[in-house]
Amino acid sequence: MRLSELSARSGVSVATVKYYLREGLLAPGTPVTARQSDYGEEHLRRLRLVRALLTVGGMTVQQARDVLAVADDPAFGWHERVGIATYMLGPRVEPPEEGAPERELWDEVAAEVRALLTELDWRVYDEAPALAALVRAITSVRSLGYRGEMADIRRYALALHPIAEEEVAVIDGYPVLEEAIEATVAYTTLYEPILLALRRLAHEDASARRHEGGPGGAEEGGRPTATA
Amino acid sequence: MRLSELSARSGVSVATVKYYLREGLLAPGTPVTARQSDYGEEHLRRLRLVRALLTVGGMTVQQARDVLAVADDPAFGWHERVGIATYMLGPRVEPPEEGAPERELWDEVAAEVRALLTELDWRVYDEAPALAALVRAITSVRSLGYRGEMADIRRYALALHPIAEEEVAVIDGYPVLEEAIEATVAYTTLYEPILLALRRLAHEDASARRHEGGPGGAEEGGRPTATA
Repeated sequence: MRLSELSARSGVSVATVKYYLREGLLAPGTPVTARQSDYGEEHLRRLRLVRALLTVGGMTVQQARDVLAVADDPAFGWHERVGIATYMLGPRVEPPEEGAPERELWDEVAAEVRALLTELDWRVYDEAPALAALVRAITSVRSLGYRGEMADIRRYALALHPIAEEEVAVIDGYPVLEEAIEATVAYTTLYEPILLALRRLAHEDASARRHEGGPGGAEEGGRPTATA
Repeated sequence: MRLSELSARSGVSVATVKYYLREGLLAPGTPVTARQSDYGEEHLRRLRLVRALLTVGGMTVQQARDVLAVADDPAFGWHERVGIATYMLGPRVEPPEEGAPERELWDEVAAEVRALLTELDWRVYDEAPALAALVRAITSVRSLGYRGEMADIRRYALALHPIAEEEVAVIDGYPVLEEAIEATVAYTTLYEPILLALRRLAHEDASARRHEGGPGGAEEGGRPTATA
């Protein structure tokens, strides 16, 4: 197909496709004339993936290039070639500087988290950005004076793992690598606000049941209007 | 206690305490001299809560005032007096304008969500901001061409509810209203990044197991370095 058809079928403007070509995010087509190239289905697939990495995944061009480099490298296994995309999703969390006062709490929490993952036998690379994000979040809880005990974290981990297994099973319904990467990026990012909203609604229900409040509850003393 | 002790014990600067007093977020103390007032433990509790609403909860002064107004109103039941704080937590999502093209998908998804909550018998007020947030998130998934079926949403809801029940049980360990509100704000907001990070780590483990990848996996073809 020509560039115009590639653009039309992918929903990506011609100008943007040319940009991706210049940036090396898309392989050149087969030259047909001095000015036109021919593109195949693999270009359409790759284009759709690039778009997902940049827009849904919020990646920079360099990050997208890194993801594609690993995806294209047969030396890596399927798990790594698909999973690298999730490493490029935000947010990127850095530990405090060595020697900074907050570093001590960071190291303490990091050690507890590593011990917990070992206990749970979770196969996670040390470089997984979500590890640093988890450590940072737990240090926030503790430094504000709230509980952030590994017993709590373990309960969440055990409750979330079955959900994650099902999600990975859905990703495995995409046997073409680019589509599996795209689905991974989409499911990881787009479902986060769904999970957070459902959790808040579940809290509301659980609280209503315990205190006989909420719509129709015996103790419903009135519905506060959520203003401003 | 004097203002200086209230400041010292709460960790809130004298200038900020005075600001809260001016804004009506804190009740005046009992005047002792023309220039000094006396503050009690209830001021310390209220001050701690105000700080949590504004900093951890990220609320505006007006939102904090609304939370406190409901908290102080005995006409409301416990469930509402504690829960109103979660209504003031971000993000605030508005439906598309009536008549806008996106409104049709919104209404369709909103109807499906309401039907699901009825089926699950979740006692949630129509005004719950998390409802709009959930609808917005699902419309995003669908308008980008991904699955966002109620069957998926139901599975997440059922898996998350037990976690939510345990969290509400922890909140109930704070029988003093201000402390329960503060704990609710803290657990709702500070644990969100913990849950999201744990989900990503669980994905990584589930994927490693399915594809025999990851640290020590049979198919570990190399560890991609997460750059930039």
